[in-house]
Amino acid sequence: GNPPRYQREIADRLTAKQLFERGCGNEDLRELTGEEVTFVRADQVCEWRSPEQLKELLDLELRDGGESESKILQRCRDAIRYSVKTTHPHFFNQLYAGMEPYSLVASFIVEALKPSLYTYEVAPVFTLMEDAVLRKMIEMIGWEEGGDGIFNAGGSMSNMYAVNLARYHHFPDIKEAGLSAVPRLVMFTSQECHYSISKAAALMGIGTKNVYMVPSDNRNSLCVCVQGAVPFMVNATAGTTVLGAFDPIQEIADICEKYNLWLHVDACWGGAALMSNKHQHLLKGIHRANSVAWNPHKMLMACLQCSAFLVRDKTNLLQRCHSSSASYLFQQDKFYDVSYDTGDKSVQCSRKPDAFKFWLMWKALGTGELEERVDRALATARYLAEEIKRREGFRLVMEPEYANVCFWYSPPSLRNLPDGPELWKKLHTVAPVVKERMMKKGSMMVGYQPHRDKANFFRMIVISPQASRLDMDFVLDEIHNLGKDL
Amino acid sequence: GNPPRYQREIADRLTAKQLFERGCGNEDLRELTGEEVTFVRADQVCEWRSPEQLKELLDLELRDGGESESKILQRCRDAIRYSVKTTHPHFFNQLYAGMEPYSLVASFIVEALKPSLYTYEVAPVFTLMEDAVLRKMIEMIGWEEGGDGIFNAGGSMSNMYAVNLARYHHFPDIKEAGLSAVPRLVMFTSQECHYSISKAAALMGIGTKNVYMVPSDNRNSLCVCVQGAVPFMVNATAGTTVLGAFDPIQEIADICEKYNLWLHVDACWGGAALMSNKHQHLLKGIHRANSVAWNPHKMLMACLQCSAFLVRDKTNLLQRCHSSSASYLFQQDKFYDVSYDTGDKSVQCSRKPDAFKFWLMWKALGTGELEERVDRALATARYLAEEIKRREGFRLVMEPEYANVCFWYSPPSLRNLPDGPELWKKLHTVAPVVKERMMKKGSMMVGYQPHRDKANFFRMIVISPQASRLDMDFVLDEIHNLGKDL
Ligand SMILES: Cc1ncc(COP(=O)(O)O)c(C=O)c1O
Ligand SMILES: Cc1ncc(COP(=O)(O)O)c(C=O)c1O
Repeated sequence: GNPPRYQREIADRLTAKQLFERGCGNEDLRELTGEEVTFVRADQVCEWRSPEQLKELLDLELRDGGESESKILQRCRDAIRYSVKTTHPHFFNQLYAGMEPYSLVASFIVEALKPSLYTYEVAPVFTLMEDAVLRKMIEMIGWEEGGDGIFNAGGSMSNMYAVNLARYHHFPDIKEAGLSAVPRLVMFTSQECHYSISKAAALMGIGTKNVYMVPSDNRNSLCVCVQGAVPFMVNATAGTTVLGAFDPIQEIADICEKYNLWLHVDACWGGAALMSNKHQHLLKGIHRANSVAWNPHKMLMACLQCSAFLVRDKTNLLQRCHSSSASYLFQQDKFYDVSYDTGDKSVQCSRKPDAFKFWLMWKALGTGELEERVDRALATARYLAEEIKRREGFRLVMEPEYANVCFWYSPPSLRNLPDGPELWKKLHTVAPVVKERMMKKGSMMVGYQPHRDKANFFRMIVISPQASRLDMDFVLDEIHNLGKDL
Repeated sequence: GNPPRYQREIADRLTAKQLFERGCGNEDLRELTGEEVTFVRADQVCEWRSPEQLKELLDLELRDGGESESKILQRCRDAIRYSVKTTHPHFFNQLYAGMEPYSLVASFIVEALKPSLYTYEVAPVFTLMEDAVLRKMIEMIGWEEGGDGIFNAGGSMSNMYAVNLARYHHFPDIKEAGLSAVPRLVMFTSQECHYSISKAAALMGIGTKNVYMVPSDNRNSLCVCVQGAVPFMVNATAGTTVLGAFDPIQEIADICEKYNLWLHVDACWGGAALMSNKHQHLLKGIHRANSVAWNPHKMLMACLQCSAFLVRDKTNLLQRCHSSSASYLFQQDKFYDVSYDTGDKSVQCSRKPDAFKFWLMWKALGTGELEERVDRALATARYLAEEIKRREGFRLVMEPEYANVCFWYSPPSLRNLPDGPELWKKLHTVAPVVKERMMKKGSMMVGYQPHRDKANFFRMIVISPQASRLDMDFVLDEIHNLGKDL
């Protein structure tokens, strides 16, 4: 059909050049006449193939003989072609999206140099860069006395580190003697936490049943006495995965202080708001946390993975908790200051210098530009929310606090049904079909999910500065176009 | 001084062209006259700077304002310049080295596409490729009924997965109820195991004291009854980190079968020998293991990280053990077969498609070429060992079984001392000084370490096909040159 027409940004006096700068390529601006712009993004987010089709297209089998260079080049082209373009401005499916080119340059350098971060000797540059980035992040958190930290393979691992440190802080004997030497341990988390918290509890032998989910409307239930068990930590989430909500850190910190519990703030997603004077209030009190997980690969668009774990402790807790002092790596008779050999802080052995991917872009852009981007993404998300409220057939799940905009779409056939189980049952089936159609068309990717008692709703994640208001309009138009017959 | 002269490879009738193909650039071949070659690698492995110097050179601080492109370009140049060139043919310091260009291409593609492997929907190509690589690796292990697996962020994590699966297999309730619901668990490992085994035990609440190290000369001590505790697994190492030794898997498998213990083989380093008809006997019996860790980023030169965890189970144990069924990712009402959404097998959330880095090179080279490379590396290591035996002042720690060649160097001043504590005390101080000198010169990187009761010795790791016999000669000459005055 005809591409939708946009006039709003023109009213804001956006020129073609400005649109171009926001990431609309020549091909995207198919038509630009007078005050009216016809706006299409030419390339697809994905070219959907079923697993069966794709297997046939890719010839995955590995054989005794090798293949010619031209064949391999074709394999590379195919891999690219059928992969999802997560850096496309219409990819809104995950908490990472978009591509910061400076970060990509850093990634390429890292890949080509093949470093691993355990000793200063084999990774001098990246050891120092990791330290510099951690110190700056610690400054943004507001730990005036400093702290410690480490980059690792994802926020899930950072959350796991938090649980391990909290446990070790309370019971240092566990490292050697194991959990069988201590009473049953329990931990608290706000209900909307990321699933990595329970994965950590399972892996670490604590058990998922010993993770007490505290409903957000009854935080005082946190201080219940747990029969025969010892609580040791609370996980608060700053920017929840689905709704983008922020737990009130101040309130939770009060409780933690009162009961001597380790406070971990999972700010993997919401941490970026610390860059913004306008939005940092969302994380008010974060300086009271004992540890923080913060993923620059999410809102700040560093390349995957780029995840920092930060800890307020200044007594080398991280190293004491994780170290095994392998003598083949961490010799003590080296000719330089071995406190620069940071590898024993990690449960990994080989470890990628992910901090560099953040360092280089931060250096190039400056904190100021990072702040502007966060502000811009949240303003775009705000615009989307207002547009949803304005448009017939769309309904917000909640007012967004951050860059997650969650909403239902009702096709015309459901709009006159009375509110009730019947309607919700029908609404529940809309999002999966719209999703299927958008994937097969390849025009955009937006996630959906059920959530607690709520029927399937869309979750738009707005990150990239290339995703403009035009794109927000496009998403809503497209959802309507794909679902209006349902 | 004058560069050493090499004649041996000439006798093997190596031409300049052949040398070039083995990675000696134009500049490296400074002189090529008649039957005599003067062989120098022109570029340094590292350009050593102390942490203090490097901090000054790099200007690490992150500021409010950004920097110009030309400045950023200079930062990139500096990062490269002062980083260790782990892909240089004279880097022998770690269990990874060298660079397979096809793998690098795959890395670049991955970085540029920014995929994360949890659902087929967001990573269709890489989900299928991971599956294909895992199946092929399983075939090489010899699990005729198939199996399951996952790539993850390093072999340490693979070993951790093994411990978790073994534990879950014996006590599925632990996932929910935690370790406080079961008796004290203990595990066995051969003494020479990688330190990630104890790190895993600490992290997982088992405790390092409950990891029983079985001395390699008394394997029957493995079946001792451990008062009040339940043994659940044995870790065997195929290719140990320091010595490159192989535990006898058959023997250990017999014991595991007898006592119903999970057998994990840590073949992170030695797994590559499975590619070689000549050397696969080192891992005889590996098909009897319940799980295997194997890092293609080590001997096979895939880019970092590329680490597979493989499990013989066919009952979806991996997924059952790790899953948390997050409804925002793993919706069950999707329009495709959700068994392709493999993310819930992992304890990570975002996860990189590391398998592609192995897939592409395997596809390009074929199993045949991979086999040749392994054979070549082991032949070069063998050559080095023979050369060490031949040369005065050098002494092997043990006959190499694999690509680790461990040896002492005695400077002339120590050669006439009688064997005894006095000599070993002096020898212990030689390697650190030689290491310091080679780092400051930048001519090569070879690791050293003490090991159990043994004084500091060098450990050469031979991997890259670019490291020729000429380079082996160079290493021994260079160690002598750097240490002869000690
Ligand atoms: C709140 C929160 N914490 C942690 C994570 C895990 O981060 P990663 O995917 O890097 O493991 C996520 C992932 O989306 C998240 O949303
Ligand atoms: C035998 C063995 N297992 C496991 C590992 C850990 O591998 P990674 O560095 O990928 O964590 C190593 C590392 O050198 C190793 O030598």
